[in-house]
Amino acid sequence: MPQGQVPLVPADGLTTRQRRNRPLLAVHTGEMKGKSTAAFGMAMRAWNQGWPVAVYQFVKSAKWKVGEENALTALGRLHEQTGEGGPVVWHKMGSGWSWSRRQGTETDHAADAAEGWAQIKRDLAAEAHRFYVLDEFTYPLKWGWVDVDEVVSTLSARPGNQHVVVTGRDAHPKLIEAADLVVEMTKVKHPMDAGQKGQRGIEW
Amino acid sequence: MPQGQVPLVPADGLTTRQRRNRPLLAVHTGEMKGKSTAAFGMAMRAWNQGWPVAVYQFVKSAKWKVGEENALTALGRLHEQTGEGGPVVWHKMGSGWSWSRRQGTETDHAADAAEGWAQIKRDLAAEAHRFYVLDEFTYPLKWGWVDVDEVVSTLSARPGNQHVVVTGRDAHPKLIEAADLVVEMTKVKHPMDAGQKGQRGIEW
Repeated sequence: MPQGQVPLVPADGLTTRQRRNRPLLAVHTGEMKGKSTAAFGMAMRAWNQGWPVAVYQFVKSAKWKVGEENALTALGRLHEQTGEGGPVVWHKMGSGWSWSRRQGTETDHAADAAEGWAQIKRDLAAEAHRFYVLDEFTYPLKWGWVDVDEVVSTLSARPGNQHVVVTGRDAHPKLIEAADLVVEMTKVKHPMDAGQKGQRGIEW
Repeated sequence: MPQGQVPLVPADGLTTRQRRNRPLLAVHTGEMKGKSTAAFGMAMRAWNQGWPVAVYQFVKSAKWKVGEENALTALGRLHEQTGEGGPVVWHKMGSGWSWSRRQGTETDHAADAAEGWAQIKRDLAAEAHRFYVLDEFTYPLKWGWVDVDEVVSTLSARPGNQHVVVTGRDAHPKLIEAADLVVEMTKVKHPMDAGQKGQRGIEW
């Protein structure tokens, strides 16, 4: 975690405090594990600040229950009960988005993805949350289900102080260009190379 | 998250299930954010499995309150109250390890680090936990405060089914050699390059 001196002080007319508290657009990309996991770890920090957290899971099936979902929604319930931390909402595409009356199609993923993005746009415009995880959102962009130019212009013009983390492989160059922070998770060694399959508690 | 076919089936005499459930030694290294954050995200999954989770934070000052600590220990309290998830213990070097009667020296970091490692050895031998985060543990190895050969042999011979994640830059080659899973967090773009300092809720 780099701290202390920054390599340059930009001539952007902002004070250090203004610059420090500027909302972040982060992208976690690369071929390797850790992209979503690190985003959910950041969401724990956001929860601890009392920030409203929203997760939008693209692609993953509803049957794919991730441990982070249970843990973060448990933290959200703790907030409701004790006031500790912040509220947490978790939306999944696989089973039909929770705000949508129609059942998830499980067949028209392009329409489901577009519907998810439309809700994110509404939430950003309403400043509904403070910390957003757009999990596996690189794929709908890659597959043309959601227009990358619209995403970049919407995210770049989002009002207030809303942090957004986008995860997934093959992040679009325009998204990387627009991001403040881009981390690539790179494989050095993976147990599947040695014939080991994924296991509960580790992979999900 | 890779799934499905593995590139080879090793002639190790293990069944797929035995191989699948083999305890993992993972290393998160590289220059970039996300090493610890992803490890704490994995700890959420472990919590969700009901596994006893232990975090040993090396190096970080006690004053450096990370959001993940508050969130994971809140999950640990939730477990005590409701039985949901698993127990969580969080040990920090900066203020003196919690099991130690002497105050943290804040001056003799080498002795503090050696004391932390001695406790980890005892906990592993006793199978006290199921999921261990050895946060920023690469540095005591790098600086010679803890002997890397002893660490590698202890971790390699740990009994039962205990998963261990080590985080930090400049992981020792012997540790990487011993690990099942190594992820390197690589910088593509960081806001400090544009003169932005770290901010609360994002960096800690």
